[in-house]
Amino acid sequence: MMQFQEILEKKRDNQPLSKEEIQFFVTAYTENQIPDYLASAMLMAIYINGLSTDETVNLTEAMLYSGTVVNLDTVPGIKVDKHSTGGVGDKTSLIIAPICAALGIPVPMISGRGLGHTGGTLDKLESIPGFNVNLPLSDYQKIIQKTGLCLIGQTKEIAPADKKLYALRDVTCTVANKSLISASIMSKKLAEGIDALVLDVKTGRGAFMQTEKASEELASLLISIGKKMDKAITALITDMSQPLGSHVGNALEVIESIQILKGECQPEQKDLLDLSIALSAHMIMLGGKATNYEEACSLAENTIKDLSAFNKFKEITTVQGGDSSALDDFTKLPTAKEVFLVKASKSGFIHELDALSIGKGSVLLGAGRKTIDSIIDPAVGLVLKRKIGAMVEQGDTLMEVHFNNPQKLQDSRAYFESAITIQADEIVAPSIIKKVIN
Amino acid sequence: MMQFQEILEKKRDNQPLSKEEIQFFVTAYTENQIPDYLASAMLMAIYINGLSTDETVNLTEAMLYSGTVVNLDTVPGIKVDKHSTGGVGDKTSLIIAPICAALGIPVPMISGRGLGHTGGTLDKLESIPGFNVNLPLSDYQKIIQKTGLCLIGQTKEIAPADKKLYALRDVTCTVANKSLISASIMSKKLAEGIDALVLDVKTGRGAFMQTEKASEELASLLISIGKKMDKAITALITDMSQPLGSHVGNALEVIESIQILKGECQPEQKDLLDLSIALSAHMIMLGGKATNYEEACSLAENTIKDLSAFNKFKEITTVQGGDSSALDDFTKLPTAKEVFLVKASKSGFIHELDALSIGKGSVLLGAGRKTIDSIIDPAVGLVLKRKIGAMVEQGDTLMEVHFNNPQKLQDSRAYFESAITIQADEIVAPSIIKKVIN
Repeated sequence: MMQFQEILEKKRDNQPLSKEEIQFFVTAYTENQIPDYLASAMLMAIYINGLSTDETVNLTEAMLYSGTVVNLDTVPGIKVDKHSTGGVGDKTSLIIAPICAALGIPVPMISGRGLGHTGGTLDKLESIPGFNVNLPLSDYQKIIQKTGLCLIGQTKEIAPADKKLYALRDVTCTVANKSLISASIMSKKLAEGIDALVLDVKTGRGAFMQTEKASEELASLLISIGKKMDKAITALITDMSQPLGSHVGNALEVIESIQILKGECQPEQKDLLDLSIALSAHMIMLGGKATNYEEACSLAENTIKDLSAFNKFKEITTVQGGDSSALDDFTKLPTAKEVFLVKASKSGFIHELDALSIGKGSVLLGAGRKTIDSIIDPAVGLVLKRKIGAMVEQGDTLMEVHFNNPQKLQDSRAYFESAITIQADEIVAPSIIKKVIN
Repeated sequence: MMQFQEILEKKRDNQPLSKEEIQFFVTAYTENQIPDYLASAMLMAIYINGLSTDETVNLTEAMLYSGTVVNLDTVPGIKVDKHSTGGVGDKTSLIIAPICAALGIPVPMISGRGLGHTGGTLDKLESIPGFNVNLPLSDYQKIIQKTGLCLIGQTKEIAPADKKLYALRDVTCTVANKSLISASIMSKKLAEGIDALVLDVKTGRGAFMQTEKASEELASLLISIGKKMDKAITALITDMSQPLGSHVGNALEVIESIQILKGECQPEQKDLLDLSIALSAHMIMLGGKATNYEEACSLAENTIKDLSAFNKFKEITTVQGGDSSALDDFTKLPTAKEVFLVKASKSGFIHELDALSIGKGSVLLGAGRKTIDSIIDPAVGLVLKRKIGAMVEQGDTLMEVHFNNPQKLQDSRAYFESAITIQADEIVAPSIIKKVIN
């Protein structure tokens, strides 16, 4: 243990750790050779004193190689995935994975569950009857080979160091650190077998990074790690001041994704469509299927027009055990018993639609998890009828709250209502894409 | 646990903690309601971000009241103790406790054992055959009432929070923080039943605080805590660049203390005599037995001249079960089998006599503890024949190393030899007292 305490003293005193020291920490902790009370002291020292880019790269690498790194060399093509830092109403994975796969870009996608006020891809997929996200890595490889995409959850072979460290960070108030976040994200993403990655780094009230500066710093660090690991990588800084698109909640977000894939985009969904096309276009470029952005956008849009992306989503649903007929007949998806309407308390323009408050309300409604063990209700959630910048008349319906339990509606209602700010002066809707970095 | 994590987040973000928050941390941890991994994260956050004086006072108070606070109101007089931050050859407690008690000042003294390169009063006392430092608090109170002093070790009733927190600090690299050190010292000292305290804050190579600035900061913080707790308090910043006095090792330090108490001070012991008189004088003033420093020094010196302090030491030895005849006949004390002489490698003046190196060597020789469970050899140690500033001829004996195990002599010898630096130019001996603060 002597060796580890020397490493701990160094980070305590804000000195850089070597690659070997970081490797020792990660390996010894993962193998239960360092007790939690020493690892938590180290995490706190890292949280407060920070890690350099080199230290973060070394941490990522140590966490990555704590488990299996999938080899997809037998799958032809440049394998590209997307990762989002998490938001409210963010269902782009369900849209862009089929778009890219329809264009012949293999998409190996290992996703997470919702935690805190943000949703998770796995929970959304599981609202499709029968959809199985708990596949072993051997099936994952075969399905990507055959179908061009696969959508699963983190298996125990993937970055076990991250799993153990994250559980400790979660209880010791050491989650929200740029380097620890980056190493956690990248160790899991690099284990998927990708060649390239598009990052959707959210910014604003509903994001973990609430300022554009913090989001850009996180994006830069993620890009540095990717480059050091020889991966092509592009990051978009995107708005999360209000929820993305119109639907929030698991089955509701599946419905909205299908609306987008079918070309049935409503005005309040335009930010979702724009972002989905942009993320797809960057994946298409990294995947070598287009040489410029306009061409890539046009390719992505075509997969919507010709329904090839929607058909790819149906195909992967069937392959992963899901009932693809539910994607044509939404009555086969979980549906809430009742709808409560939130109406405009006055006339004017919507200035705020606070994503954080809406996310917290959704958790109380049952759409998200309070703790890792919470059971979610896939049917509940809300549908936004207007977004920031819209002109409204007093009494107009602004949100539909889909609920099953009246008590939970009571618990969450104030969060939804207080999320809305209406003022007399006109306001321009926030642009969805703030910046592209690569 | 939610409540504690909010407290942890505050300190992580360098925000001040309230009295209630600190109280909650200390109480819940002592009562095993907070796991080690949360407490260690808190200690690391405190170590790096620091505590204000108010926070340190609140921490001290919470730790103090985690256990019994001895009430000595039935003992007449102002109860005064001394605490040293620890050094090499520091045996002043054995000299000043009898001096003050001989003058009618009650001295309630709960001491520690040696750890690291520094010695401990309890180990020294236990080298006197039969001397029992493990007395219950009820006996401690009775003995102070009867004899005017009592010299015991920390019982389990005294500041249990400190015991548990110190054990965690020791393994998580969070010992050397000013506020944590101060709260640990003061919570134990204030539990003794004192009215006033003299602090001997060591500075230099052999001290925990190696710079005078750091030592003064620690002293100021200790004084602030004492004052907030309504205790009269004086701090001396004293030299620990070289060992104090001439003897290092447990029985050897008892011998030197008796030499001082009998008025047989040798030139190389003058720093010890001067410091003992100074510390006693400040205790005498705080104890209300003198109104100025000169008068207090003279009173202290008189207890040596008339042997009343030596007789008091014999009395307490008998009361605590020790063989007081060993204090007149040193052959009854543990005695090492052999003596190795370290001689001057060249002629010149002694410029350094590195206390840290000598302290480390003493541990290897068997005089101190490598770990809390180490068994010490009370007989071994060294006697310095010359100190910094002395002129020496090549071949002069500089140290006697008293040893029992030739292998341990081999292990420690280089530490003793490398501690000595001789140079051609004359040098003034360092002054023992650097500063008095109150």
